[in-house]
Amino acid sequence: MQALLDAVPFDANGLVAAIAQQHDTGEVLMLAWMNRESLAETLATGQVCYYSRSRRRLWRKGESSGQTQRLIEMRLDCDGDALLLLVDQTGVACHTGRRSCFFRAAQEGAWVEIAAPLVPAETLYGETR
Amino acid sequence: MQALLDAVPFDANGLVAAIAQQHDTGEVLMLAWMNRESLAETLATGQVCYYSRSRRRLWRKGESSGQTQRLIEMRLDCDGDALLLLVDQTGVACHTGRRSCFFRAAQEGAWVEIAAPLVPAETLYGETR
Repeated sequence: MQALLDAVPFDANGLVAAIAQQHDTGEVLMLAWMNRESLAETLATGQVCYYSRSRRRLWRKGESSGQTQRLIEMRLDCDGDALLLLVDQTGVACHTGRRSCFFRAAQEGAWVEIAAPLVPAETLYGETR
Repeated sequence: MQALLDAVPFDANGLVAAIAQQHDTGEVLMLAWMNRESLAETLATGQVCYYSRSRRRLWRKGESSGQTQRLIEMRLDCDGDALLLLVDQTGVACHTGRRSCFFRAAQEGAWVEIAAPLVPAETLYGETR
């Protein structure tokens, strides 16, 4: 574990970019960030844990919404500043209720929504959780 | 074009993360960065242009190596801090000569190479170019 962590040159903020990709379909779900602690937890538990830059704390994906990501394989890029997480996404990755965060496409000079929410966003973070 | 650019909240360094994915196979090729100028050029030309943080200048992918990326579709994520580029990659994306930059996988506590170079790295940046 230590060797895995030591090989990642975290940036000036102590972070590394992490791309989550659904392991079997190849769909790119989201881009988020990890610090050393969240990377260690992800490797130890097999459940993806990011670092939330806005909330400045560990972000156990799905902790509020139940939309967890199980790690299937983790890859590191050539210069070590990005991780690719092959995951099995429960439900939806995006806080808007869409499967992927990349739901807008450039079409004729505008960003056009190409995917609708699969679940209402408000139910993801509702009172029942 | 202006509307597309204005919708991207570039970070404090004027950059946005860009993931390149081979459009037909789903393979994630690399993660790099774009500034407003490189994003505009990419949209205008259909050839992917990044911003090199180390060289501090536009990085027209393939300008030295010939390994260009043709843009098929561009997507923006929910909070606008990441782009997904669906591309058609000529040859290899990685400067090491591998198809993808993500050629190391975490296995039993170590990063293990899971892909070999398809072309020798030295030929990518040789005297003939």
